[in-house]
Amino acid sequence: MSSEYGKKLRISIFGQSHGKAIGVNVEGLPSGEAIDMDELLAFMARRAPGTSDLATKRREPDIPVFLSGVENGVTCGFPLCAIIENKDRRSGDYAGLTNTPRPGHADYTAGIRYGASVDMRGGGHFSGRLTAPICIIGGIAKQILARRGIYVGAHISSIAGIKDEQFPLEPSKNLFDSLAKKAIPVIDENAGERMAEAIRTAAGELDSVGGVIECAVIGLPAGVGSPMFDGVENRLAQAIFGIPAVKGLEFGAGFEAANMRGSENNDPFVVKNGNIKTATNNCGGILGGITTGMPVVLRAAFKPTPSIAREQNTVDIKAMTNTTLTIKGRHDPCVVIRAVPVVEAVTATVILDMLLEGNNNGSF
Amino acid sequence: MSSEYGKKLRISIFGQSHGKAIGVNVEGLPSGEAIDMDELLAFMARRAPGTSDLATKRREPDIPVFLSGVENGVTCGFPLCAIIENKDRRSGDYAGLTNTPRPGHADYTAGIRYGASVDMRGGGHFSGRLTAPICIIGGIAKQILARRGIYVGAHISSIAGIKDEQFPLEPSKNLFDSLAKKAIPVIDENAGERMAEAIRTAAGELDSVGGVIECAVIGLPAGVGSPMFDGVENRLAQAIFGIPAVKGLEFGAGFEAANMRGSENNDPFVVKNGNIKTATNNCGGILGGITTGMPVVLRAAFKPTPSIAREQNTVDIKAMTNTTLTIKGRHDPCVVIRAVPVVEAVTATVILDMLLEGNNNGSF
Amino acid sequence: MSSEYGKKLRISIFGQSHGKAIGVNVEGLPSGEAIDMDELLAFMARRAPGTSDLATKRREPDIPVFLSGVENGVTCGFPLCAIIENKDRRSGDYAGLTNTPRPGHADYTAGIRYGASVDMRGGGHFSGRLTAPICIIGGIAKQILARRGIYVGAHISSIAGIKDEQFPLEPSKNLFDSLAKKAIPVIDENAGERMAEAIRTAAGELDSVGGVIECAVIGLPAGVGSPMFDGVENRLAQAIFGIPAVKGLEFGAGFEAANMRGSENNDPFVVKNGNIKTATNNCGGILGGITTGMPVVLRAAFKPTPSIAREQNTVDIKAMTNTTLTIKGRHDPCVVIRAVPVVEAVTATVILDMLLEGNNNGSF
Amino acid sequence: MSSEYGKKLRISIFGQSHGKAIGVNVEGLPSGEAIDMDELLAFMARRAPGTSDLATKRREPDIPVFLSGVENGVTCGFPLCAIIENKDRRSGDYAGLTNTPRPGHADYTAGIRYGASVDMRGGGHFSGRLTAPICIIGGIAKQILARRGIYVGAHISSIAGIKDEQFPLEPSKNLFDSLAKKAIPVIDENAGERMAEAIRTAAGELDSVGGVIECAVIGLPAGVGSPMFDGVENRLAQAIFGIPAVKGLEFGAGFEAANMRGSENNDPFVVKNGNIKTATNNCGGILGGITTGMPVVLRAAFKPTPSIAREQNTVDIKAMTNTTLTIKGRHDPCVVIRAVPVVEAVTATVILDMLLEGNNNGSF
Repeated sequence: MSSEYGKKLRISIFGQSHGKAIGVNVEGLPSGEAIDMDELLAFMARRAPGTSDLATKRREPDIPVFLSGVENGVTCGFPLCAIIENKDRRSGDYAGLTNTPRPGHADYTAGIRYGASVDMRGGGHFSGRLTAPICIIGGIAKQILARRGIYVGAHISSIAGIKDEQFPLEPSKNLFDSLAKKAIPVIDENAGERMAEAIRTAAGELDSVGGVIECAVIGLPAGVGSPMFDGVENRLAQAIFGIPAVKGLEFGAGFEAANMRGSENNDPFVVKNGNIKTATNNCGGILGGITTGMPVVLRAAFKPTPSIAREQNTVDIKAMTNTTLTIKGRHDPCVVIRAVPVVEAVTATVILDMLLEGNNNGSF
Repeated sequence: MSSEYGKKLRISIFGQSHGKAIGVNVEGLPSGEAIDMDELLAFMARRAPGTSDLATKRREPDIPVFLSGVENGVTCGFPLCAIIENKDRRSGDYAGLTNTPRPGHADYTAGIRYGASVDMRGGGHFSGRLTAPICIIGGIAKQILARRGIYVGAHISSIAGIKDEQFPLEPSKNLFDSLAKKAIPVIDENAGERMAEAIRTAAGELDSVGGVIECAVIGLPAGVGSPMFDGVENRLAQAIFGIPAVKGLEFGAGFEAANMRGSENNDPFVVKNGNIKTATNNCGGILGGITTGMPVVLRAAFKPTPSIAREQNTVDIKAMTNTTLTIKGRHDPCVVIRAVPVVEAVTATVILDMLLEGNNNGSF
Repeated sequence: MSSEYGKKLRISIFGQSHGKAIGVNVEGLPSGEAIDMDELLAFMARRAPGTSDLATKRREPDIPVFLSGVENGVTCGFPLCAIIENKDRRSGDYAGLTNTPRPGHADYTAGIRYGASVDMRGGGHFSGRLTAPICIIGGIAKQILARRGIYVGAHISSIAGIKDEQFPLEPSKNLFDSLAKKAIPVIDENAGERMAEAIRTAAGELDSVGGVIECAVIGLPAGVGSPMFDGVENRLAQAIFGIPAVKGLEFGAGFEAANMRGSENNDPFVVKNGNIKTATNNCGGILGGITTGMPVVLRAAFKPTPSIAREQNTVDIKAMTNTTLTIKGRHDPCVVIRAVPVVEAVTATVILDMLLEGNNNGSF
Repeated sequence: MSSEYGKKLRISIFGQSHGKAIGVNVEGLPSGEAIDMDELLAFMARRAPGTSDLATKRREPDIPVFLSGVENGVTCGFPLCAIIENKDRRSGDYAGLTNTPRPGHADYTAGIRYGASVDMRGGGHFSGRLTAPICIIGGIAKQILARRGIYVGAHISSIAGIKDEQFPLEPSKNLFDSLAKKAIPVIDENAGERMAEAIRTAAGELDSVGGVIECAVIGLPAGVGSPMFDGVENRLAQAIFGIPAVKGLEFGAGFEAANMRGSENNDPFVVKNGNIKTATNNCGGILGGITTGMPVVLRAAFKPTPSIAREQNTVDIKAMTNTTLTIKGRHDPCVVIRAVPVVEAVTATVILDMLLEGNNNGSF
């Protein structure tokens, strides 16, 4: 198996939801990069549980401890290992890998794949909690990119079918900053209130909802990426589908492009203030796997949280009979809000990896 | 750059649209696998141009020549290199990398990325023609999988917004076989006729259309794949976005899942004829990156062909002024029909790679 | 950079000599493998400092703490992260990365490579101390291999030019076990005494000595490995040169084979007790990168410890003048004794990796 | 299996000795690099057979045909595939994979590994002939490096125990050029004559001899490489052991360092003409895996050609009895002379790969 991604920047996520610690080991970070710890903690707080009535009640301070690779707050070029100790463990809520797999969860598939010794308490290594270490390296990657004028931002595109506005043609750093401060990161706050309401309604009905996150990268020069299997889309796709609950991904007009004519979908090149731009950005800033210089824009679809409190049909894998199951434990009625920084984190690490790797014309 | 994918099965695509030959080099094929050449040629013919009024007039026989790795029609375990000579070259139609990049094409981005020496005649290495060598190894992979009872099939899910039926819960090998024989591989032939009409209409208006392809893998056991970044979705996504024109990808209910409640989207486990199945397959046969034993189902969105015959706005990159462009050359008004075997090919190679790699519980 | 090796078994070593902790993160271990902790600690004790007058006085208990991947003493198939806290830190002995690089050390090259932020206290990430986490995973790999009847053993082939006997044609597990118990692991104990004497003499003269370690793998079936760049020699070589101070590596007759005639060096095949063997093993158990079924035999040459207490010539890189340097700190007058389990560890992980990866005919 | 090496520069060698063609596919070459074809052919001619009474009589013109990646003699950034057609095939000399494996050859191990379908005529994919495509990319790599002032040269260090002088502390480009022109590339031509005599003697006695090749890289800046498993030694070792018949490898003083005191082996830093150098180069230009700025120096040990004309003992693997074998076919009584450019080729590609990958401080 591999809980690892990246080429030059090798990012390996370890830990189980109810083990001693979770963490990340990163090879390939350049030396001499300062880490702003306050900024990193603020970024991680956007993902942390226990801060709102819209999320799980499990409380974890999520303070990363750096075991290696950082000296006086600056990367020293050696592998960076950072861990988060698991404090608020209540594995009593879980019966480990039981005979009645939870629908929509990895219990059944993990049991087949890893056998009896697999540690599935709280989701084990499949837990959404593993996105915390992704945010450690993602937050660092965002800082390194920002120093080069490259910014990554995201917002909720929809929850339960309620839509936010899409990003403008060229979103600004200011827009990203203002989104990062919102409890519900949307452009249209009215839509955000309706989303919150939909989440509360679903939770009240012992149910859950899904949604879509839109993420953009600005400041990226043209010429990053390669044709065929090593383009920006390939690399982002491989990593974004690593975020638990993601079931779809599109770039630019995405699935909507399939319904368009070429004359509509093609983005005309235009000269604007002495720079080459495109008048529209249906290609999501990527042509032939390579950046155009316009914002890279992607949308990731998240399924509704599979852990719901109402009774569900499942099987008893020992008895090989149909049965029912009622899930206990503390769960988010919607993971989309807390997933926004995770999408930013994964996107930032992939983009940084491609630049460090020199998957461009060498101008970075 | 990397025109390469796979872990155990290393597949490298080489060639330019108007070079001497295009081809594929494959490391990691097991030894002792017979290649049915008639079946391979029949598979490749589904992608070949020049066979219908719905596709480009460029005619290439697309007969692969095996330089290595095959002995008496059987793989010998060494790297397999197969090439297709380019016969019907008319590079006079193309002015190479000119000053006026085509909208929706990689001309501009490739020029920035690779500089003046890049060979972009006919799309160069970005050409859809490079999907022919993908079909060589894809066709071989399909044969190897079929010998283990694993089948890959696809159909057009939509073109120009006209929808075919979706695959049934458990599509059969017979359905795949019948689709493979159709000029327009759809389940609902009436929809297929309307698609053909839409393509002809667009072509008549010097325009193009896009569409969506649905692909399924049946016969795959539960337990293939790994959590986080090395699951079935990650691996397929990294490769599928390597097919030119793909801008979106979803598994199972995909983007639609984002609008569903957990209680709707969760697939209840059921015992059927002594096997564990799911009553629905919204997860597309994958939970936690690992197969459930139900069909793996994906849908890829293709943008409309960017090469259209009508005048388009673009820039002169030397003069840095706005200008217009009219594209010549022979192009498909819709790539979706010919892309169906390509999606099958990529899917088959990824699945075979994961099995060869032992990215499962070792039962392959 | 990459402090990582392995294909299926991804082993990443992290930590600096004087950081919070050093450790190893491992992806790809199979699930369900019990770890015998007593055996692991006994293995690690063979490498641990502070146990003899022949080694550095730095004392570290070297007790690994498993943060993830192990559940009730059994691997669960998820990434295994184990750390060793650094207790006996005296960084006052070191002035970090100073202006006068130590001859034979990485101070100068690391400064050029990583710049001012590099943490070089006690050798930083280049420290021999980083071989402790290698022994964690190496000890586990040895246990997993032993369960399949594959054993890895090593002895000192020479120190300061004083030679032990070479391994017999087919060394036994008993021989390996008896070597593992010796303070100076040699076959000829008289040679061992003279080696100890040579080390003490060198130390008394404020100097150091080098040596050669011979390592063998028994019980490995024929057919492991691949031609050209992925054979047993390639894989072992890439990893063995990762052990600090290794400057040479040979398999079987190695450099001596270069002086032999083909008729002497060729190992005749013979049938022995119904098995195919070779009468000699000049090829070190490897032909064409693939195991013959005879023991795999390698020898690694270790340079003398570069840290010596006598004054040495060096430069002042700021002033760009010649100067002298006297090194303080606690150092081994000979690293070879403590390196014996490290060579076993690296060898065991590489062999396990190749078997897990299926770099054979699939019989593992 | 993998006949592939390199990280950024992915080099894959394909072909069997008696197949249609052998060749190399290379990903990751930068665009815009001119290929001097005359220089390339001259380089390849140093390896080509049939030019001397000291080598095999098999005659192959070894003219590479570029199928892709080159446009008007300049790399275009896309995968470069070059092939050499096999012309002088006489597979009648070989009975394929027979029941009596040749001692010292891969017949036995390949049969176990790949089974009955393996194509072993003339050594199949294990043949020394596969070093021809290595020389295509190696010759190109040498040209790209030379443009940056980095030169790779090699000479025969010994054959049959007869020793040439070692390289001086800082070998010059002129020395490399003069060696490249010699039929027997040695510094001491008298030694060369005795080597030729030894080869003829061995051939006359139906036997073969081995030898050692010394290779150096000059002009390489300090700071290339990484600690532990991704240093210059690791990368070179992984690739050099891919050359058929190599059984040992050492850097700088290598095995001799194991017999030295630290005070002898440590290379003192000195300021020379305003540059930091070392007074000796026992470390072979590498400390901690990273270049010092002094020449990188390695020596590779080649075993004597296993194919000898005299009768040898072997087994009948079907009958499981001891028997004898007399090898026919055309073979080199010593591969060392023709292997000199191959060692240069592999060394050049590895160094170029590390520079392209940015495995340094970014100054390339």
